[in-house]
Amino acid sequence: METAKKLCFASDYMKGAHPAVLARLVETNMEATSGYGMDPYCEEAKDLIRRACGCPGARVEFLVGGTQTNATVIDALLRPYQGVIAAQTGHIATHEAGAIEAGGHKVLPLPQHAGKLDAREVHDCLRDFAADENHEHMVMPGMVYISHPTEYGTLYTKSELQALRAVCDEYGIPLYLDGARLAYALACPQSDVTLADLAQLCDVFYIGGTKCGALFGEAVVIPKADLLSGFFTLIKQHGALLAKGRLLGLQFGALFTDSLYEKIGAPAIRAADTLRDVLAQKGYTLCFGSPTNQVFCIMENTRLEALGQHVEYSFWEKADEAHTVIRFATDWATTKEDVEALSALL
Amino acid sequence: METAKKLCFASDYMKGAHPAVLARLVETNMEATSGYGMDPYCEEAKDLIRRACGCPGARVEFLVGGTQTNATVIDALLRPYQGVIAAQTGHIATHEAGAIEAGGHKVLPLPQHAGKLDAREVHDCLRDFAADENHEHMVMPGMVYISHPTEYGTLYTKSELQALRAVCDEYGIPLYLDGARLAYALACPQSDVTLADLAQLCDVFYIGGTKCGALFGEAVVIPKADLLSGFFTLIKQHGALLAKGRLLGLQFGALFTDSLYEKIGAPAIRAADTLRDVLAQKGYTLCFGSPTNQVFCIMENTRLEALGQHVEYSFWEKADEAHTVIRFATDWATTKEDVEALSALL
Amino acid sequence: METAKKLCFASDYMKGAHPAVLARLVETNMEATSGYGMDPYCEEAKDLIRRACGCPGARVEFLVGGTQTNATVIDALLRPYQGVIAAQTGHIATHEAGAIEAGGHKVLPLPQHAGKLDAREVHDCLRDFAADENHEHMVMPGMVYISHPTEYGTLYTKSELQALRAVCDEYGIPLYLDGARLAYALACPQSDVTLADLAQLCDVFYIGGTKCGALFGEAVVIPKADLLSGFFTLIKQHGALLAKGRLLGLQFGALFTDSLYEKIGAPAIRAADTLRDVLAQKGYTLCFGSPTNQVFCIMENTRLEALGQHVEYSFWEKADEAHTVIRFATDWATTKEDVEALSALL
Amino acid sequence: METAKKLCFASDYMKGAHPAVLARLVETNMEATSGYGMDPYCEEAKDLIRRACGCPGARVEFLVGGTQTNATVIDALLRPYQGVIAAQTGHIATHEAGAIEAGGHKVLPLPQHAGKLDAREVHDCLRDFAADENHEHMVMPGMVYISHPTEYGTLYTKSELQALRAVCDEYGIPLYLDGARLAYALACPQSDVTLADLAQLCDVFYIGGTKCGALFGEAVVIPKADLLSGFFTLIKQHGALLAKGRLLGLQFGALFTDSLYEKIGAPAIRAADTLRDVLAQKGYTLCFGSPTNQVFCIMENTRLEALGQHVEYSFWEKADEAHTVIRFATDWATTKEDVEALSALL
Repeated sequence: METAKKLCFASDYMKGAHPAVLARLVETNMEATSGYGMDPYCEEAKDLIRRACGCPGARVEFLVGGTQTNATVIDALLRPYQGVIAAQTGHIATHEAGAIEAGGHKVLPLPQHAGKLDAREVHDCLRDFAADENHEHMVMPGMVYISHPTEYGTLYTKSELQALRAVCDEYGIPLYLDGARLAYALACPQSDVTLADLAQLCDVFYIGGTKCGALFGEAVVIPKADLLSGFFTLIKQHGALLAKGRLLGLQFGALFTDSLYEKIGAPAIRAADTLRDVLAQKGYTLCFGSPTNQVFCIMENTRLEALGQHVEYSFWEKADEAHTVIRFATDWATTKEDVEALSALL
Repeated sequence: METAKKLCFASDYMKGAHPAVLARLVETNMEATSGYGMDPYCEEAKDLIRRACGCPGARVEFLVGGTQTNATVIDALLRPYQGVIAAQTGHIATHEAGAIEAGGHKVLPLPQHAGKLDAREVHDCLRDFAADENHEHMVMPGMVYISHPTEYGTLYTKSELQALRAVCDEYGIPLYLDGARLAYALACPQSDVTLADLAQLCDVFYIGGTKCGALFGEAVVIPKADLLSGFFTLIKQHGALLAKGRLLGLQFGALFTDSLYEKIGAPAIRAADTLRDVLAQKGYTLCFGSPTNQVFCIMENTRLEALGQHVEYSFWEKADEAHTVIRFATDWATTKEDVEALSALL
Repeated sequence: METAKKLCFASDYMKGAHPAVLARLVETNMEATSGYGMDPYCEEAKDLIRRACGCPGARVEFLVGGTQTNATVIDALLRPYQGVIAAQTGHIATHEAGAIEAGGHKVLPLPQHAGKLDAREVHDCLRDFAADENHEHMVMPGMVYISHPTEYGTLYTKSELQALRAVCDEYGIPLYLDGARLAYALACPQSDVTLADLAQLCDVFYIGGTKCGALFGEAVVIPKADLLSGFFTLIKQHGALLAKGRLLGLQFGALFTDSLYEKIGAPAIRAADTLRDVLAQKGYTLCFGSPTNQVFCIMENTRLEALGQHVEYSFWEKADEAHTVIRFATDWATTKEDVEALSALL
Repeated sequence: METAKKLCFASDYMKGAHPAVLARLVETNMEATSGYGMDPYCEEAKDLIRRACGCPGARVEFLVGGTQTNATVIDALLRPYQGVIAAQTGHIATHEAGAIEAGGHKVLPLPQHAGKLDAREVHDCLRDFAADENHEHMVMPGMVYISHPTEYGTLYTKSELQALRAVCDEYGIPLYLDGARLAYALACPQSDVTLADLAQLCDVFYIGGTKCGALFGEAVVIPKADLLSGFFTLIKQHGALLAKGRLLGLQFGALFTDSLYEKIGAPAIRAADTLRDVLAQKGYTLCFGSPTNQVFCIMENTRLEALGQHVEYSFWEKADEAHTVIRFATDWATTKEDVEALSALL
């Protein structure tokens, strides 16, 4: 296919599964197991995830994709009069086609700082809401949504997460972390946040599979297992319950064997770091300060077409009349040769 | 795993994918393609499906699972003041955890006859609604949902479908067919309904992959391509848009190469027919008149436990104090040996 | 107006307000008070209602109409994976245009017995749900809805309500009573159920104003005041919060002064009893056993047109090819003369 | 009551109805008419409104309050994948408790300019959406919501409305105008917009009763009568259908007799103008440029408590550490004496 001949840096969901994941699907293909996640492979994978999170009592559930996971978790956490605080650039606020509102909940946007929420601003939002004499006529902020890495590839530090946790505790609302690209955070040398930290600091978070070595699948972790009533039924109601649920167990089982998930992002980070160095050397301006697998830079519009003939990249946003912010995304399968070939074109 | 050692007749989603499907996933695994179904494999599969349906102008979209497909299609077809007519045993009326109501729509149940809707009763329902002087205070029946095969394994005849079509035309509402197990209908010698018939008689139908040889996936066919506005966005909103959409294209591409889909159910039907013969010979009462891959019979409660130690089957419903209706489901991978082993236990 | 010249027995919401209610609206018209129910008249009315219910700790909220009250209360009581048990003839199941489903909840119909739910059948429904191995794929019954009087004018006895309460307690779900016509129950000599009984037996109930002497308005009583979180905001979200909330306080204040509400239905009951006697004497068959202000009887179709020229009544349902069930409704303002005039026509 | 003794400038929904409105309710109180708006008073009022709007073919429907009207109209205008553009200060975006999101729709906020949308910015939003390569993953802007007067008391000029209309036409989406305080716009000498203009420029608008002389009620005008399918049922579903619908007909009938509605706001405008003069003379800074019945000014915090002991006003927002923006609202019943008494306190 022609598209395969171009260098591929458009996103991190363009290839299939990590070989270890695929191998497990192939070798178990003709086995027969119970459906809907009631199979030994799911049990095994859940145990591995609990262990990796240092959280033996956690509840773990597998869903298929990110938007449905966000919609289902948020529906489970909120009451109908509540909304969800998110950065204005948060995925749920922009590119999920109104899935949260379709479930009846307002997304309450706050300013982003390199794609992140600021704990102080979250605090002030909650304080101002409580103080507003009309607050009973308004949507109550009922939870906080963050993504890590963010949509800009940036990372929360542990102390930033602790600050958000403290605000959530002060106002008695849950903190939910969208880890669609979590493997790339875990593999990033600048990050000081571990899976165990997430299990301590979040009420719910999900470990992304789709962009991190699986064909598809997201693992929701609920450290306090009793937090969400009726969650299985909500998963079903949201169309997020896979009939052949073992496919999720098998994939996450592979990803959490020998800590593969915590290592799988490393080639992507190395490739992105190299790319950032090359871009900087060649005089491009890097954007947003992403240390992970998403590389944003400013490109002259006049160069875009020629570049696009050899590389798939993402248009991000207009920078000015003559320039555009574009994104190169690396992934677990990006090779040194891919990066060298791209560098030669820049 | 111990569960794998039992004979497995509990359902038709317990194994992986047909070898031809799996092979395509394996051989393309490391290719890079665009996401969200914008890849050549999806294009190819859509073309194959259009051809198989004799409907070159049809729109085809791939979703992941049945409940989400039903919820998304129904949401696209109805206005907020409308509900969906279904048999009281219809999947959307019973086992989808309220997914249709979560989208704001009432399921309007009508009596089932061997799991099927009767066109005359649908007609009378629509006529009575229109005649009711309070009908503006009631939920308007805005579409008809049927499944084929039904939840009881039964099949609509072509003339039954034509009668439903005529009623829908008379009242100007769409007919939607849930083909979660469609391969088993197409492979059933008693059936006179082809894919091309469905494309002529339905406004929307879906070709089930999950239970019919794929790992997962359902192909929605919309013969009049312009029927559903905003459908892609609704798929996304419902969390039903797979990031690595090509996985669906690859699977349906394999299933519609060399008419595999129309043949894949044949072993299941043969196995089920044999099983029905054996059960009848041994004096069991068969139920519901299913000619497809689901076999229902009445079993003495006292025999259930022993049977359950060697076979996985489904509890269906209580028949009387001493008897239970149980279900054996065969699938595309059920072997002659499986059936013989089961027969020996009955 | 010509319609006013006919005898009027079509419903119990056809006239304005009881004179005592109207007088309070008129005498306070030019006063200025805070909006949204934050006024002294609402406070006073809430106190009067608490006292009438023998429940000083109850929370009372005023809404405008019945459908919005049902939708708001049910939304407040249920989680998104739950539905509401109702008689198949329950108002929420039939004539509220899908308001409950629009809020995301399935109405779970059970058979009606003279319009009432049977506690044993509710019990069995809840037991069977819990026992169903697929229950996590189904809508969980999360509350019980009853109306008193029912849509057939019938009444629950105290012991029937106690039996429902016991079932609800056994399964840990709330009991909600729709009292749109509650004044006609309280004024019915056959009834042994008081407002204080309702406050003891229901988790939430509403005292209907619209059909019982007010221009509009329903008073929701929540005996355990803390039951519903965010209820005020939900009322606003449902569009059920009247800006000039004092209008509701004034009306209910009048209705609960000198126990007017408990007496206001008496003329309607007397009129209905007379009418039932007349109908029986004239050989008509009475239906449903209503002892309240709704009188159902079977009429030959050939007589309907002539009757309709002098009386407004309600078509209820077809009895057989030659007969129809019709309804005459009396109200707090029906006079002896009205009934005599109607009797003369029968 | 003590609250009545304070000067009352907190809002425009604090008193009852205009005497002419109340008189009609009183004089018709004991008449019996059909419910749900199927009465001659509603017919008469609809005719009067059609005439006042110069739009004999318009559909007119009466609802009870503003939030429910907005939610119902928006639900009727949008498909589930669409959202509504509104100024960030629009009522639906702030003080309706998430009613629009509860119906499944995102509110898409744009910057406000004195509370108004700028047609150019609406155009750019629609153009950018269409141009965004990810737009199928985003909520489609499906309509434009404006309020007139706005939440800041400001008014659109006819040419501003024409510009919005042109943008809506270019992108094929409807324009909806919330006229909760429309009488105060019509009575404002600076305004060049008539009811007939609204009927020509809007797809749907509502004529506010609650704040403009009625006890409650809003009249939705749909110039092209066929625009909204199923609208009556949606009104019922939203709990917005008043059983004694004639109460709305009677009130709007009174308001549209002898053009009362177009004159009723005049005393409020005169009072507000006087108040603005007094405030300016006394050196207060007026805010937002409102020419209608809402007067915003900046007050030193140290003066607020003393003022509040004699006047009810609204806190609007913090201006700086030492100052607050407050609002005085006049209404159709504000007298010269009220304004003089307030002026003496400033």
